[in-house]
Amino acid sequence: MSGNTFGKLFCVTTFGESHGPALGCIVDGCPPGLEISAEEIQLELDRRKPGTSRYTTQRREADQVKILSGVFEGKTTGTPIGLLIENTDQRSKDYANISEQIRPAHADYTYWAKFGLRDYRGGGRSSARETAMRVAAGAIAKKWLKQQFGIEVRGYLSQLGPIKVDKLDWSQVNENPFFCPDTDKVPEMEEYMQALIKEGNSIGARISVHASGVPAGLGEPIFDRLDADLAHALMSINAVKGVEIGAGFASVEQKGTEHRDEITEDGFQSNHAGGVLGGISSGQELIAHIALKPTSSLRIPGKSLDINGNSIEVVTKGRHDPCVGIRATPIAEAMMALVLVDHVMRQRAQNGDVKFDLTIPAGESA
Amino acid sequence: MSGNTFGKLFCVTTFGESHGPALGCIVDGCPPGLEISAEEIQLELDRRKPGTSRYTTQRREADQVKILSGVFEGKTTGTPIGLLIENTDQRSKDYANISEQIRPAHADYTYWAKFGLRDYRGGGRSSARETAMRVAAGAIAKKWLKQQFGIEVRGYLSQLGPIKVDKLDWSQVNENPFFCPDTDKVPEMEEYMQALIKEGNSIGARISVHASGVPAGLGEPIFDRLDADLAHALMSINAVKGVEIGAGFASVEQKGTEHRDEITEDGFQSNHAGGVLGGISSGQELIAHIALKPTSSLRIPGKSLDINGNSIEVVTKGRHDPCVGIRATPIAEAMMALVLVDHVMRQRAQNGDVKFDLTIPAGESA
Amino acid sequence: MSGNTFGKLFCVTTFGESHGPALGCIVDGCPPGLEISAEEIQLELDRRKPGTSRYTTQRREADQVKILSGVFEGKTTGTPIGLLIENTDQRSKDYANISEQIRPAHADYTYWAKFGLRDYRGGGRSSARETAMRVAAGAIAKKWLKQQFGIEVRGYLSQLGPIKVDKLDWSQVNENPFFCPDTDKVPEMEEYMQALIKEGNSIGARISVHASGVPAGLGEPIFDRLDADLAHALMSINAVKGVEIGAGFASVEQKGTEHRDEITEDGFQSNHAGGVLGGISSGQELIAHIALKPTSSLRIPGKSLDINGNSIEVVTKGRHDPCVGIRATPIAEAMMALVLVDHVMRQRAQNGDVKFDLTIPAGESA
Amino acid sequence: MSGNTFGKLFCVTTFGESHGPALGCIVDGCPPGLEISAEEIQLELDRRKPGTSRYTTQRREADQVKILSGVFEGKTTGTPIGLLIENTDQRSKDYANISEQIRPAHADYTYWAKFGLRDYRGGGRSSARETAMRVAAGAIAKKWLKQQFGIEVRGYLSQLGPIKVDKLDWSQVNENPFFCPDTDKVPEMEEYMQALIKEGNSIGARISVHASGVPAGLGEPIFDRLDADLAHALMSINAVKGVEIGAGFASVEQKGTEHRDEITEDGFQSNHAGGVLGGISSGQELIAHIALKPTSSLRIPGKSLDINGNSIEVVTKGRHDPCVGIRATPIAEAMMALVLVDHVMRQRAQNGDVKFDLTIPAGESA
Repeated sequence: MSGNTFGKLFCVTTFGESHGPALGCIVDGCPPGLEISAEEIQLELDRRKPGTSRYTTQRREADQVKILSGVFEGKTTGTPIGLLIENTDQRSKDYANISEQIRPAHADYTYWAKFGLRDYRGGGRSSARETAMRVAAGAIAKKWLKQQFGIEVRGYLSQLGPIKVDKLDWSQVNENPFFCPDTDKVPEMEEYMQALIKEGNSIGARISVHASGVPAGLGEPIFDRLDADLAHALMSINAVKGVEIGAGFASVEQKGTEHRDEITEDGFQSNHAGGVLGGISSGQELIAHIALKPTSSLRIPGKSLDINGNSIEVVTKGRHDPCVGIRATPIAEAMMALVLVDHVMRQRAQNGDVKFDLTIPAGESA
Repeated sequence: MSGNTFGKLFCVTTFGESHGPALGCIVDGCPPGLEISAEEIQLELDRRKPGTSRYTTQRREADQVKILSGVFEGKTTGTPIGLLIENTDQRSKDYANISEQIRPAHADYTYWAKFGLRDYRGGGRSSARETAMRVAAGAIAKKWLKQQFGIEVRGYLSQLGPIKVDKLDWSQVNENPFFCPDTDKVPEMEEYMQALIKEGNSIGARISVHASGVPAGLGEPIFDRLDADLAHALMSINAVKGVEIGAGFASVEQKGTEHRDEITEDGFQSNHAGGVLGGISSGQELIAHIALKPTSSLRIPGKSLDINGNSIEVVTKGRHDPCVGIRATPIAEAMMALVLVDHVMRQRAQNGDVKFDLTIPAGESA
Repeated sequence: MSGNTFGKLFCVTTFGESHGPALGCIVDGCPPGLEISAEEIQLELDRRKPGTSRYTTQRREADQVKILSGVFEGKTTGTPIGLLIENTDQRSKDYANISEQIRPAHADYTYWAKFGLRDYRGGGRSSARETAMRVAAGAIAKKWLKQQFGIEVRGYLSQLGPIKVDKLDWSQVNENPFFCPDTDKVPEMEEYMQALIKEGNSIGARISVHASGVPAGLGEPIFDRLDADLAHALMSINAVKGVEIGAGFASVEQKGTEHRDEITEDGFQSNHAGGVLGGISSGQELIAHIALKPTSSLRIPGKSLDINGNSIEVVTKGRHDPCVGIRATPIAEAMMALVLVDHVMRQRAQNGDVKFDLTIPAGESA
Repeated sequence: MSGNTFGKLFCVTTFGESHGPALGCIVDGCPPGLEISAEEIQLELDRRKPGTSRYTTQRREADQVKILSGVFEGKTTGTPIGLLIENTDQRSKDYANISEQIRPAHADYTYWAKFGLRDYRGGGRSSARETAMRVAAGAIAKKWLKQQFGIEVRGYLSQLGPIKVDKLDWSQVNENPFFCPDTDKVPEMEEYMQALIKEGNSIGARISVHASGVPAGLGEPIFDRLDADLAHALMSINAVKGVEIGAGFASVEQKGTEHRDEITEDGFQSNHAGGVLGGISSGQELIAHIALKPTSSLRIPGKSLDINGNSIEVVTKGRHDPCVGIRATPIAEAMMALVLVDHVMRQRAQNGDVKFDLTIPAGESA
C-alpha cells in the first residue's frame, strides 16, 4: 500500500536508501524452473551502473548483486527471490550540509511534508539508486519472457535535449555511452554533454522502449489496460514527466483516417496504436516513449528555502548525472518487462495455455 | 485482477456492456457521513452524456443513475455504494452486421484474441459508455475532496486537432459544447467540426486537468507515485495515447536551470513539475495533460479482415462522436479525483490527521 | 480495502443492505466461455433462501437474481458479471424501534463505533442477507470448477446444538430442511427446533464442507496457504466463531504417529490433514468445519444499553432464524468454491496448464 | 499474489529458505517517526529462537537481525524497512538423504506437485524458520500498537497435548520454556515432554492470544472482518489446523441466551464473542485460540513413497521440536499484531483521527 511493490502476479518489492547499508528487493511470483544466475542479473545491472562514462555520475558502486533465496541448483523454485546489493561507496559527508536545505525540483520538501522527517543522505529513498533493484528484477522478467515466449524488450535514447535520433539501428544501442541507436549522432551528443558539464547545467531526454514478439491478447479491458499499466510503470521512474504509447501526443492532430492502422492479409499497415488496442496487445510491436526532465542537482546556484523557511541559495556539489535520461534506458526496459510478465501470467490465469486461432501478422512496426 | 477495479482504499469496480441491460459500479471505501444524492451524481453524468450537442453521438441515453446501497438518510454509511444506470436506447441491430468484422483501430481483434469470443454490440465492454460509471464514482470523490479538504478538480479542452487554446478562463469551460476555456476559439472549433462531420472523418484532442488545494505530501515514493497513479488512471481512459505531468515532453529540451521550479518566500516561482516532486504532491497546482486519438468509427471505408481472415472494407454507420476527446473532460476529472481521494486516504492511514509544520506557498500555477 | 471484495483473481465484490433497494455483486475475473444462466444461479440461491421451512426466518424474499453483464449468448465473456437481486419484502417498520438500541451480540455497537452512524433496518449491511450474493457468485465458481476440473464442493450440517450427525450420506443432504446427511437424526432435530422456537431461544451449529477432485498443488506456501485462505473465507461468514481443517482442534491431543497420514501405493491411509500439507492441496479430499454461534435475535429479553448509554431490555420481534447454522451450508460451500477457483487460477498463472508427473492416489477421506 | 506478503497497509513480505544464505523481510507501510532498534526486534526473536531449551530443536541459530533500510537516526522514515537474518548453522548434509523422500505430513509432496521441483534442505521454504521474519516484523507492529494506542498483544500455551492450563497468570508466561501461564502445570509438562522425546514421538498444542486496549471499531464488515483476517493470519502459521475466536467451537452447543454477551453500565458481562461483533472489534479483549498439530518429523518410522513412487520407510534424524506448538506463541502474537496494525491504519484511512462518542466499558474478558 505504501507503493514499494510493483506487479500483481509477478511482484517486485524494493527497499533501501542511497546511503544506507544495502538495497534489496523481493521478486515474488516468479514461475519455478527458470534457470537464472547472479551473473546474468549482473549483466543488466552493469548497463545501468554509474561511473561507466564521463557523462554519468562518478559515484562508483560495485553494485554486486547476491541471490539470497528462491533459486536452488541454478533454477528458480517458485518461492520468493531475495536480491541484495550492499552499498560500498557512501560518501555521506557530502550530504551533511544539505540536511536542512530544500533543493529545488528535488523530493526534499515533499518527503518532509509526507513523513515529517527524512534520510537526506544522497536523497535517501528518492535517489535513482533505488532503480538498480528494478533492473535486477527486470533481468529475471526479461529472461523468462524471452525464453518462454520469445518476447524481447529493448530500449534506446531517442532524443537528448535538442538532438533527435534519425535512425534505429538496434545493433548500435549498447555500443555507445548514450544507448543511442544512431551512431551518426553520437559525436554531436558528446560535444553537447561536454558543454553542458562545463556550464554546470543539465538536460532532459526522451527514451523509447519496444517489445517484439508480444502475442495478441495481453492486457485487461478497463483500468489495468496494458497501456495504462505501462504508463504507471514508466511514470514511476525517477524524473519521468510524460509517457506516450505509439503515436502519443501526435494523435492530437491526426485524423481518424491517418491514425487507424489498416489491416490487410500482410498484417497491420502501420502502428500508430503502438501495439495496443482497447488496452490489449494487438500482436504488433509494443512501443512506448518517455520524457525525462533534466537533473535537478546543479552547480549553478538556485533560489530556495531551508526547512525553517529562510531563503537560501542551493548549489549541489555531489556527483550527479548531467542527464539522468542517459542511464534510464535499462530501467525503462525493466519496467516494460515487469508489466509484460505480469500480463502474461494474468492471461494464463484466465485461459491457461489456450491459444485462439485467428492471428494477424504483426506488420509494420511504426 | 481482471482490472475492473480502480483504487486501493477508495475502490471503484465497474461492470456493464454498451448494449447490455445495465451499467453499474460499486464504490467501496467511501468514508461515512458524506452527504450525497443521486441528483448530485447526475449533474456530473449530464456533463458527459451523449446527445447533448451536434458534435457528439446522437445516441440518447437517459443515463439516469440510481443509488442502490451505502447511503442512508442522505449520508454515506461507509458500506459499499452500488450505482446503476439502466440502458434504454439500445439499437443493437445497428451492430449485427459487424459481428464478424475486425474494425481497424478498435478493440475487436484484441478482445477476440484475449477472450476467444466477444459481445460485439456497440463495442460491448470496450465502449466508452463504461466511463459513465467512472464519472458517477468520480462525482462522489470530487464532493468529498472539496468538502473535506477544499481540493477542486477541473479540466478543459486544451487542443482540438490543430486548434490550440490560448486562454484559460475557467468560467467559460462549461458554457460551450467543447469544454473550451477560450471563447474566442469556439467558433473556429465549431467550423472545424462541421467540416469534419461532412467529411466523415474524426480528429484527436488534448485535455488538461488541474487540481487546486492539494496539500503537500500526497503520493508514495516509488511505484505508487502520485504522478504514476495519475498516468495509470488517465491512460486507462478510452482513446488516450499519452499523459504528461507539468511540462511533460517539453522537459526533454529543457535545461535544469529552466525546469527546476525555484522557491522564494512567495512560494514556487514556476510549476514545470506540475505539482509533483519525487512522486509526492508539492502543494502546487496538480497539472496533467492527455492526448486522445481520433475516433476510429468512420464513414470513410478502411481496409481490414473479418474473423475468418478475409479482406473486407469497413464502414461504420452507427452513431459516433467525431472527436471522442470532447466528452473526455469530465472523465479525466473523475480519474484525477479518484487518484487524489485514494492518496488522501493513504496519507491518513500512515499519519492520521497529523499535519507537519513547514508550508511553502503554492506560488505560480504554470 | 474496505473488504467487500473476496478473491485475487476471481474477485467477488458485494453491495447492498438488508432493507435497501437491492443487493448485488460483481464477479470479476471469471474466465470466458463458461455457459451460465440466471436459472442455474437461482438453484443455489433457492437452497439458501429464507422462508423455505418453519425452522428459518419467515421473511419471504423472491431473491430473484438477474445477470446484468458479462454473459453474452449464454456464455461468460471474460468481462465483469453484474448480478442483482431487488429487495421486495422489506418490512422496515419492524425495525424502527431498534434504531437506538444496542442489541447484545449484534453488530449494532461496533458499526456505530466504526462508522459513527448506521442503517439499522434489518441489520443493514451486517444482515446475513448479504450472503445471498456470495451464494450467487459461488454458483458460478462451482460450475466452472466442476466442468473444467471435476472439482465438486459439498457441505452438510454436522452438528445442531447437542445433536451430532453419525452418518455421512451425501444423497440425503438436500432432502431435509437441515442439510443433514444422517436421516436418522432428522426427527430429533425437528423436535429440538420446535422446543427452541417455543422457548424463544436459539442454538449454535457445526457445518462441514468437502471438496473432492482437488488436484495436488493448489495453494501458496506462506500467507496465502489454501487452508489460511479457507479460514479467512469461512470465518467471514456471519456468526462463524471457529474454523478447522481436517482433524482441527483434535490435533492438539494427537501424537505425531497418529496425526501423520501415512502413504502407501494405495494412497494416503488417513486424512487428518484435511487435504492440505504446507498450505498446499495434497490431492486428498479438502475438508473444513465451522462453528456457528446461536442467533442473537431472541424473544427472551436481554440487558443492554441504548446509544445514549441508558440501560434497556432488548426483545427482538422480527423474523429470525432460530439457528443461523441451518442456512449456512450453501454459503460455506460458496466460500470454499471461491477459494478454490482463485487458487486454480493462481496455479495456472504460474505454471500454465503444466501437470507434473507424480500423483499419489487420494486414498482415505477422513 | 504468490502469497509471501501479509497485510494491506502495513505489509510484510518475507523471503528465505531454511538452509539458504539468509532470511529476510520487507516491512512496507510502517508509519514514520517510530523509534525502533535492531535490539528491540532481537528481543522478540530470542523468544522464538530454537535451541533455548531441551524441548525445542537443538539447531542453534544466532538469528541476529540487521536493519538494512527504513530507519534513520533511530526512527522509522516511512520507507520500507529491510530486515535480514543470515543463516549460519546450516547442516545441509543432514538432509541429503531425504531429497527424494516424501515425508508423511510434510510439504514435500505438495511443493513438488505445485512447483515441479523443491529445495529439500531443511524443508526449504516450508520450514518454520520462515516465521522468524514474522516475529521480527511483528515486533515493529507490537511496538507501534503499544506506544501509539496502548494496545498490547500477548499469548500463552493453553494446552500441551492432554494437559490443559487452569490459571492465566500473565507474569508467568515468559518464565518457563513452554509459555505456560500456570506454573502448577509446568512440572507435568516437563515430564510429559521427556517421555515423548524418549519415545521419539511428538504432540499437538493449543495456543491462546489476547489483545487488550483494542478500541471498538476495527475491522471491515464483510470479507475483511477482524476475525476473518485473524483466522487467515493464524491459520497461515505452520502446523495450525484450527482457529477459534472467543467461545469458538463451544458456540455450537450454546443457546442464544448463554452466548450473547449482555451489556450493563459496567460494560459487557461476558466475552463469548472474543471481542468481535459483526467482524468489528467491540472494545472487549480480543481473544483467539489455535490448534497446532504434532510435529511430523519423527524418529519412529512411517510408511510413504519416494518421488519415483516406490514404497519407503521414513525416519527423521534431523533436529526437530517434539512439539512445534511450544515455540508458536511469539509467532501467534506477531500475527495478531500484524492484523491489528493493519486495521488501525484502515480505520484511520476512513475516519482520520476521529473518535465517536459512545464507549461501552470493556467489561469481562472471558
